[in-house]
Amino acid sequence: MNDAYEKGLAMRKAVLGEAYVEKSLAGADDFTRPLQQLVTQYCWGEVWCDPTLSRRDRSLINLAMLSVLNRPHELKLHVKGALINGVKREEIREVLRQVAIYVGVPAAIDSTRVAREALSEVDAATPGA
Amino acid sequence: MNDAYEKGLAMRKAVLGEAYVEKSLAGADDFTRPLQQLVTQYCWGEVWCDPTLSRRDRSLINLAMLSVLNRPHELKLHVKGALINGVKREEIREVLRQVAIYVGVPAAIDSTRVAREALSEVDAATPGA
Amino acid sequence: MNDAYEKGLAMRKAVLGEAYVEKSLAGADDFTRPLQQLVTQYCWGEVWCDPTLSRRDRSLINLAMLSVLNRPHELKLHVKGALINGVKREEIREVLRQVAIYVGVPAAIDSTRVAREALSEVDAATPGA
Amino acid sequence: MNDAYEKGLAMRKAVLGEAYVEKSLAGADDFTRPLQQLVTQYCWGEVWCDPTLSRRDRSLINLAMLSVLNRPHELKLHVKGALINGVKREEIREVLRQVAIYVGVPAAIDSTRVAREALSEVDAATPGA
Amino acid sequence: MNDAYEKGLAMRKAVLGEAYVEKSLAGADDFTRPLQQLVTQYCWGEVWCDPTLSRRDRSLINLAMLSVLNRPHELKLHVKGALINGVKREEIREVLRQVAIYVGVPAAIDSTRVAREALSEVDAATPGA
Amino acid sequence: MNDAYEKGLAMRKAVLGEAYVEKSLAGADDFTRPLQQLVTQYCWGEVWCDPTLSRRDRSLINLAMLSVLNRPHELKLHVKGALINGVKREEIREVLRQVAIYVGVPAAIDSTRVAREALSEVDAATPGA
Repeated sequence: MNDAYEKGLAMRKAVLGEAYVEKSLAGADDFTRPLQQLVTQYCWGEVWCDPTLSRRDRSLINLAMLSVLNRPHELKLHVKGALINGVKREEIREVLRQVAIYVGVPAAIDSTRVAREALSEVDAATPGA
Repeated sequence: MNDAYEKGLAMRKAVLGEAYVEKSLAGADDFTRPLQQLVTQYCWGEVWCDPTLSRRDRSLINLAMLSVLNRPHELKLHVKGALINGVKREEIREVLRQVAIYVGVPAAIDSTRVAREALSEVDAATPGA
Repeated sequence: MNDAYEKGLAMRKAVLGEAYVEKSLAGADDFTRPLQQLVTQYCWGEVWCDPTLSRRDRSLINLAMLSVLNRPHELKLHVKGALINGVKREEIREVLRQVAIYVGVPAAIDSTRVAREALSEVDAATPGA
Repeated sequence: MNDAYEKGLAMRKAVLGEAYVEKSLAGADDFTRPLQQLVTQYCWGEVWCDPTLSRRDRSLINLAMLSVLNRPHELKLHVKGALINGVKREEIREVLRQVAIYVGVPAAIDSTRVAREALSEVDAATPGA
Repeated sequence: MNDAYEKGLAMRKAVLGEAYVEKSLAGADDFTRPLQQLVTQYCWGEVWCDPTLSRRDRSLINLAMLSVLNRPHELKLHVKGALINGVKREEIREVLRQVAIYVGVPAAIDSTRVAREALSEVDAATPGA
Repeated sequence: MNDAYEKGLAMRKAVLGEAYVEKSLAGADDFTRPLQQLVTQYCWGEVWCDPTLSRRDRSLINLAMLSVLNRPHELKLHVKGALINGVKREEIREVLRQVAIYVGVPAAIDSTRVAREALSEVDAATPGA
């Protein structure tokens, strides 16, 4: 694995959590590993590691894009990542109100449901919160 | 027109430019006016005027969403608005690289072409630039 | 809350059912309430209450749009709402055959499955039907 | 050509205009003819000719779907067809306001521009109108 | 039922499996049967039976299209069909890497998950495999 | 530039034509170059150069995906590339008939128009053809 892969793996762990990424790597097989490697290098190494945009900026953008793309599984991961990257809960809510206007009400309602599930899971995993 | 409409109209002019908005209002007729009013009140008055996200945040999000939605006419307007809202040119470029990863290469190539046209028009309209 | 909100809330209850809407309002929290208020006022108050199109017309349009948008959760609600608004079961079926032609066979198959679930739930909730 | 094709051809001419369809048939070649035949038979013969929904109903649905699908060329044809099928101009406008809510503001703005072009072309082609 | 329907039904069984198709036919009712008939004739009879493209070609194309369209239920069926049509597992994996580039990483990740489930179901149903 | 970039550049020239790629490189500036480099390395170097699928397979897949994605500019390039990669004209036509079924008639009509333009340009550029 090359340099972009190594940098990308570190960034992916920083945003999505070390436990999640280790589990994902451990569960990979010949069918899924080539895509994982491409994603780690290309998505995380080349783009997320570029400092032109902050990690907070990239999280805001991703919440919006994943809502348009209608990909709830990835959205849930990136809601949790957004909190880690410094996006506040009311800012997530407000991204999704902007989605309502530009992408339509059904996208915003579905994404708000997914985001609330992600926030509940974060709360449940936080002792004393 | 109510309060949200008036606030929205001011914000719309601040982001898209007074000349553009005045021309758009002057060109409206019975077929297009009801949509314009709805958009001014809700999109600009209710959402853009909400201070939970900065205007720079909203511009970043819009550049990404309009690329996914494949709406080049609106994208061009919002590239110009993004500059007014403090987004730098290399940041626009970087939003579109993130689009390449999450939305695919063709979306990023098309949006980069549209954005470059918008930037050229801005340069052409700026005396001494 | 303003006038458009109040009118919208009444229309929302008329189409989606009072029990569903009351439950939705009761379950709202600070994360979801601002979107709910926007949707009630903007979607239900400004557009659904406009008499230029009948409620039956709006239901037909929504069944088609929600199928293209690939939003099964909202589609299910609006299949039930369509019955309330006077759309017959064979008309719902026929909207989805038109979806097959214009949006493709997979969209029509998925939406037909969702619609049949909605119809079954309606039958199950109707004593003596 | 079979029966569904012949019925479909007549319906296609009734909705889109005889001149347009004749020109389209005359311009077909080996590359485009097989698709035209498929569309005439299934889209027009099997679906548009089914009387479960009225031609007005099908036009309303198509205006909405073509807006979501982002297909301005087909939308323009179907705005003209909608007028022939008895949809009033303010009803077209109102379909597109409903698009704004469910599909987002950019889709509604783009489709309103296309629809207004179609209406202008209809006016220009109508002597004394 | 006409000739295209009969040919289509045979092709549908050849690709999706006789057991699946018989179950689907047996489960049809007045609400779902008209769509099933349209799909069997139009999708399977007119297009899948056309020999210009091989069944392997059509499977590759479908895996890609269903990933863009975000239709996991149909994708799962067509992953199984692709194996029957001679597509190898590493070729399916590679179609989805091409999806990652052209349609974006989230589409590729979701489709890879669905495809792996389909492959597991095939393995589980294959005695001695 | 690394090895994947160099291999990718050669593949890109082989499929899209040396003249087109040289012109594209010469026209790049600071705004567009980073995306071009990303695309050349990942899209062309990592994916198109992977021999698991033939170049003909990848062209068939791309024609379908670009039709779903509604990206006519890229589609036109890849129709020309498909001919270079050994796809016959009637096979392109047939991919687009399959698009009609799975993605809907408007996508197939728009893509057929774009493909015919690409084929005309190829004919016009071929002396004695």
